[in-house]
Parts: sequence; structure tokens; C-alpha cells
Amino acid sequence: MTLKSLACTISAVLLAGCGSTVATQTYNADLIITNGQILTINSEMDVIEDGVVVVKNDQIIAVGNEDLITQYRAEKVIDAQDGIVMPGMVNAHNHLPMIAFRGLGEEGISNRLFAYFFPLEAEKLSRELIYNATKLGSIELAQSGVTTYADMYYHMDEMAKATKEVGLRAVLGETVIKFPVVDAKEPHGGIEYAKGFIEQYKNDELITPAYAPHAVYTVSKDKLQEINKLSAQYDVPVLIHVAEFPNEEKRIKDQTKATSPVEYMDEIGVLDERVVIAHGIHLSENDQKLLKQADAGISYNPMANAKGATGIAPAWEMYRADMRIGLGTDGPMSSNQVDIMRTLSYAANMQRLKHSDRTIMIPEQVIEMATLGGAKALHMEDQIGSLEVGKKADIVIVETQSANMMPSYDPYATLVYQANPSNIDTTIVNGQIVMENRVMQTVQLDDIRQSVDEFEADITEFAKELSKKAIKSKSLMD
Amino acid sequence: MTLKSLACTISAVLLAGCGSTVATQTYNADLIITNGQILTINSEMDVIEDGVVVVKNDQIIAVGNEDLITQYRAEKVIDAQDGIVMPGMVNAHNHLPMIAFRGLGEEGISNRLFAYFFPLEAEKLSRELIYNATKLGSIELAQSGVTTYADMYYHMDEMAKATKEVGLRAVLGETVIKFPVVDAKEPHGGIEYAKGFIEQYKNDELITPAYAPHAVYTVSKDKLQEINKLSAQYDVPVLIHVAEFPNEEKRIKDQTKATSPVEYMDEIGVLDERVVIAHGIHLSENDQKLLKQADAGISYNPMANAKGATGIAPAWEMYRADMRIGLGTDGPMSSNQVDIMRTLSYAANMQRLKHSDRTIMIPEQVIEMATLGGAKALHMEDQIGSLEVGKKADIVIVETQSANMMPSYDPYATLVYQANPSNIDTTIVNGQIVMENRVMQTVQLDDIRQSVDEFEADITEFAKELSKKAIKSKSLMD
Repeated sequence: MTLKSLACTISAVLLAGCGSTVATQTYNADLIITNGQILTINSEMDVIEDGVVVVKNDQIIAVGNEDLITQYRAEKVIDAQDGIVMPGMVNAHNHLPMIAFRGLGEEGISNRLFAYFFPLEAEKLSRELIYNATKLGSIELAQSGVTTYADMYYHMDEMAKATKEVGLRAVLGETVIKFPVVDAKEPHGGIEYAKGFIEQYKNDELITPAYAPHAVYTVSKDKLQEINKLSAQYDVPVLIHVAEFPNEEKRIKDQTKATSPVEYMDEIGVLDERVVIAHGIHLSENDQKLLKQADAGISYNPMANAKGATGIAPAWEMYRADMRIGLGTDGPMSSNQVDIMRTLSYAANMQRLKHSDRTIMIPEQVIEMATLGGAKALHMEDQIGSLEVGKKADIVIVETQSANMMPSYDPYATLVYQANPSNIDTTIVNGQIVMENRVMQTVQLDDIRQSVDEFEADITEFAKELSKKAIKSKSLMD
Repeated sequence: MTLKSLACTISAVLLAGCGSTVATQTYNADLIITNGQILTINSEMDVIEDGVVVVKNDQIIAVGNEDLITQYRAEKVIDAQDGIVMPGMVNAHNHLPMIAFRGLGEEGISNRLFAYFFPLEAEKLSRELIYNATKLGSIELAQSGVTTYADMYYHMDEMAKATKEVGLRAVLGETVIKFPVVDAKEPHGGIEYAKGFIEQYKNDELITPAYAPHAVYTVSKDKLQEINKLSAQYDVPVLIHVAEFPNEEKRIKDQTKATSPVEYMDEIGVLDERVVIAHGIHLSENDQKLLKQADAGISYNPMANAKGATGIAPAWEMYRADMRIGLGTDGPMSSNQVDIMRTLSYAANMQRLKHSDRTIMIPEQVIEMATLGGAKALHMEDQIGSLEVGKKADIVIVETQSANMMPSYDPYATLVYQANPSNIDTTIVNGQIVMENRVMQTVQLDDIRQSVDEFEADITEFAKELSKKAIKSKSLMD
């Protein structure tokens, strides 16, 4: 991919050479991408060969064939020759700062959440770690073509700050849980913490603040209901883990006779169109119906769910039912990497295994799920998820000239089954070029290398001791 | 990773500076790798921090801690600072030239083998295509840290030529099948073709020629027996697809009462220590016992088996039974990419799903399977699969300084769950540096770019028509 910084503008003059008379009306833009194979992900799933995307400020103002270059001029032109131009991918479920801990506790620990994650977080989490780890993770996201991610964690103001420095879009949910945690010593203290965070970021152009009640079995009924009311009042999303484990409702059997966490949420009045559930592995047909009726979003996390042996979500069923389903990695202690590229093949392959049918979840459907599907899951499809006029300029260019990308007969199959994160060439978010020709434009990895080395050294010894204890612990899933 | 081309040699003089008197006895070598975190994959699974590997000619002559650098000198020294140094990975099952067709027929075709693969091969395969596609595929393999691959295809002399030019090690099985194919117009004509190929390459330092009867249901009983005799006579491997589909024995029910293809092979006397089976998805306990008794190898291909919805092999059971099991990608129409990196997470995750147990197939076991396991599957563990004195110098260096590799607490987890092919920095095969600092040293991708463009253009139109026909075809698996 080569960049042309043209002294004269791209417009009718291009055809006649610089300095000649402008033959037709041209409009000013900020950025023009030319020559790419454009996957629009519009309702017709149009693919435009040698297409053009025009950006002004934070928006896409034109998408079409090569004729468009006679109508617009911009100082910045990116020649996407031999590249695939697509909407930025959406990672619909993450706990990004856990990147500080990824690779730990991989020795075969069954009760990993309670015996490993929580003690590690209790000991090592800090504001500073959350900020630095978010920066590292956001760089990895940008480098792999993710332009929007949704997250459930702590000190979300630190996450917002780091995410904005890198230049990504994010839905950041402040965790509410009935245990003392790093940013709230009182049970459910996240509700109070979230207030300030939401008020600070409510109108931010990149950050959508949210509530993140951990799960129905770790947040009390009245607090779930309080969060529901507050989310309506602020009009912000509610991110929650649901049906990750079988029979989660049994953990709250003193509170309900519901036969599933989804039924319980419906029963207590907290299942609405602001909810985004993560995992949704153990969903009955009725659960799926309730989620559809509520117009809730779903993050399908096939790679993490396989690694954690938690199962395969009924994603094909929900996709076919035109539900709001996108792809997520889960946190870096569950998926280890945070890019969506690796999750793409899992998204298809797990459904094919589950249904013993190689003809389902074809690559085109997977890419739709990774882009527009994620946008729908987060209720952001009016802003992102496709390359269409009026959408935010969240755009990724993928090169196809490396050995692993050759040949490229079908761009969707190339992306799902051949591409690696290193094939992402350029990442644009909200009209800003975050990475170009594989070079980060906003922050540099070297800026945080020392802090990563420091937290790695600090965590290493503690983690060794923790592993020894955790490996003996009994599984909650038993 | 930086390269030091030292004017003076690494030896005791290094400690005192160039030109000083050599204090201790030093030995000549050809290549010294220093400063890496060495995963030996020896019987103790030793990991050596700041370790040294010394190579002379095609062999590893020393492996140890940093003290070794005082004992050897070499013109070529690679500083593997911050890198993981590991045995080259083994891709134990492939059809590499099908890389020419990857990405085709992904629209949801159930009978893909018979309605798509075979007609496409019948129309488009040629000696030239096989040569060029093998070169492309071998570059992708080298770039992703695979130093040995096993393949079942046609015109294996062309594959051998291209593979040797790139500098990889391979077990190349000439296909025998009861249909006319590109290099044999008569049924089972591959037996005759193989004769010349085996005699040409029998003593090659990189190529191990082999027979590749396609499957028990596509090769007649007497030809399977003839191949068995010839393989013993030449002492070459026999690669065969086994138990990829359920009830393969039903396709030959006029010939046997065996209840599985493995039992059938045992019954007709063709299951021995030269056999390497691919897939092995539908294996009974008795099948596994027979394979172990025969000392046969198994290529576990979890990513392709998930994509093709064929199932999950009992890999954990066979690994625990200390059988010869390695990892494969299957051909590029089944897995699309040929690197083992993406298969690593599938190797663990599919077993965890199958057994509903997150504690099995931990990263250390996966890396063992990808290296020594593959070597054992191909009966080559005396030559490759670990970094030990006397083994061939097939060595890979993986960098850990990219965002996706940080932090790196556990090198095995880093490799299985964080690393991408682009993190492979240096690939050495048989003592030859095939890639260094991500730059190919033997052949260049640009050398074959034009031929890839040509075959891509030639295949595109034919494939479109074929897709329309194939999508209507009934599945053989029904």
C-alpha cells in the first residue's frame, strides 16, 4: 500500500494533470481511499472493485466506484491498491487490562475464575496498571483492525483515557459486583463509581460509558434493578455475563424459581434493549426468544469458550433469527490475544462442529458478524459497522500481497481463513488515522514498553505462588 | 533480534576482547544462537534461559547455558535476545499445492471433496502449477516456523524440487487412487509414478519420498497390499487418510466385515510402523489400540476438522497413551492457511470442548505435539523435533517484543495463544538459514508473484461455474 501525499488535490484535475482547469464541481473532503476492494457490509452486501471511500471530519461522506475521485478532493489520499477495505471490526466483549496477566495460570486450573483471577486482581490491580495495560491492549486492537471494543472492568476512567490516547472507540462498562474490588471497597460500589464516570464521558465522541453488573449470581436482585433504572435514566448500555456456565440460576435458587438467568432477568424486569449479554452459551429456545423480544445484544466468544471448555453458544440460531449478535474475544486471560482475526475462524468452525454441517456460517456471514453484527450487539449500528454514507469513518485496509494472502479469490474467505493480524495495513477510527502502513500514528509501543516490563516483573513471583494454590482448588462448574 | 557478524569469533576471546589470547580450548562451529529462551523439548522439557545452541553443518552439536559461548566459535552468530528458540514445527498432513485453490468453494458446499476438489484438480492441475504452488506454500511454511511438512499429492518430483529450493524438509507421498489423476491416467497409476520418484529421492538430505494411498475406500485391497510390500522394500513411509468420515468401512462393505478402516487395514496386513494416518477422527478404543500396537503415526488436524464439520479426533486419549501423534493443517482448501500457529490453539481447545475439561492439553503439551509429536508421527524423532545434540539443526526463533507477545510469562502459552506467524523471526532448516529477521534468504516471494497472478486469473472463471454445479450436489457424508 503506498501513500500519495498529493500537492494538488484528487479531483477532475487529476485526469488532466495538476494545474489544469477544474472541469467539474468538486467537493472538499479530509481523506480519500482509492483503488481498494470495498466490502461495504450494507444491506445488499455490495462489494465494489477499485472502489473509493471519502471521509470528511469523522464521517463517511461517499462510497462508490472509481468515478467518485473526480468529485472530491482531499489533502490526504490513501492508495489501497490490492487491498481489502472494510469496516473496522468490533470486539463485543473484553476485559482489556487483564492483558497484564495473560499467559498466567495456564497449567490446568479448573476453578480459574475464583481461585486465580479474583485473587490476582485483588493483589495486583491498580489505577496505573489499568491505564498502562489498556494502552498495550488498545495498540494490539488497532494493529489487528479492531476499531470498537466493549469492556467490563474497573477504573473505567483510566481505560477511557488510554483508549482515547490510542484513538479507539469503546463501550466501557464499570463493573458492579458484590465483593470488594480495586475501585470499590463496598459491595456493589461500582454503581457509585459509575456515576462520576458516566457523567464525565456521557457525550464523548469515542467513549460510551456503561454499567457492567458482573453476572446475575454476583450482583443482588435489587442492585440489578437499580442499575436497570439508572441505565434508562442516563440512556447507557448494561453489559453482563449471562449463561457462560450451565445452570447459573442454581447459584441464586433462594431468590428465584426461574430456570435460566435470562428468565430471571426477564422476571425481575432488567432485560431490555440496553442490555448486551456476553457468552450466552447455555440458552434455551425460550431464552433466545426473550432476548430477541427485549432486543438485547449478544457477544458470541467462540475462541474463549472453547479454551475454557464452557461450550458452544447457539450463535447460528441467533444469527438466523436476525438477532443482535457480534463477536468477542473475552478478556486476555480467557482468549490471551484480543484481536478478532483469530476469532473469525472459530466463529464459523464451532457452529459447523455443533451442527455437523460444513455449509453454515460461510465467510461472508462471519465478516458481517465481526463488523455490523458487533455494531448491532452494542446498539451502535446507526453509527458504525458498515461503510455507508453517514456512518462514522471507522475503516480498515487489509493488504493481500503477503504469502499467506495469496491467492485471494473471495475476500471474505481470505479474511476469515487466511489473514493474520499482521495483514492489517491501516486502521482509521472516527476519521483519524490510528495506524498507517503498519506504523502506529497516535502512540508508540515503545512508550509503554518499560511499564510492561515493570508490571511483568512485579507479577511473576506472586503468580507462581498463586498457581500452586489454585491448581488444588475445586471447580465451581462441578 | 539483531545479528552480529563478528570479525573475531565468539569464544573465550569475546570475554577479553578481540585479539587477546585464547584462554581455553575452543571448537569450530558454523552457527551459534545466543541469549534466547530455549525450549529444548527434550525428555525433561528443559527450558534454558539465556541459552546457547551451536550448529555445525546440518547438526546441533551443543545446547546449554551461556557458558557454552566460551567453548565454540563461528563466523555466524545470531543474538536471540528476548526471543524464544524452539525446534522447527512439523506440519504432519498437507496437500500443499492446493494453495492454488484456497478460498474457492467456500459458499457452503456439502459434498466438497467429490463435487468440487476432484473436478477442479482434473481441470486445472499441471506440473507447472504444482511447482509454483509448492513454492508459494513453502514460503508460507518457512515464514510461520514450519521446518518439516508431510504431504500427499501428485507430481511429487515437482514438489520436491520447489521444497528444496525454499530449503524445507518434507515427507512427500505420491498419491495412489483408483481414478485417473493428473500424473497417472490409469487407476492406481501412482504406484508406477512413485517408483521413479522414490528412487530419485531415496537418499536426499531434505526429502523423504513416500507412498500416499488416498484412503481405504479409494484404493483397492490388492493395491494397498502391494504398496505395503513396496514400502517395506524401499523402507519409506505410507501416508493415508483414515477415519476422516464416519463409517468409511461401509464404502467397502463388499470387501470386508471389518467395523472400521483401521480394523480393515489390520485385517489385510497393511497396518505397520511405516503408516502415518491423517485425521483419525472416528477411532474406536480398539482402533487406537491397533494403531499403537502397529506403532503407526497420527496427524491430528483440529482446525480443518472443525471447519469441515467432520468432528474432533480422540487426540487427548492418544497423546496420553504415548502414541505417535502430531499436528497437521490438512490441505489449503480445508484449512486455507498452512501454518501450524493457528492450529496450536485448536489443538488444545477442541480437546477441552470434547472433554468439557479446561485443564487438559495445556500449552506445554501442545508445543510438544507441534514439534516432537510431529516428528514421532512421521517416525523421524531420531532426526528432528527437539533441540538436542545430534539432531538436525531445524530451529525457529520467535520474537516477543511485538504488542501481541507482551507480556510473556510462560513461553508455551505465549506461543499457543498469543503468537501469530508474523512473530516468527528466523527459520533454520538442516543448518541453513531459510529466513532471518523475517527476510527470506533462499527464494523471494516476488520470484513467483507473477505465476500466482496468472494461475489465479486462469482459475477464477472456471471456479465460478463449478461452484454453481457443486452447491447442488449431495453430500457423501449423508
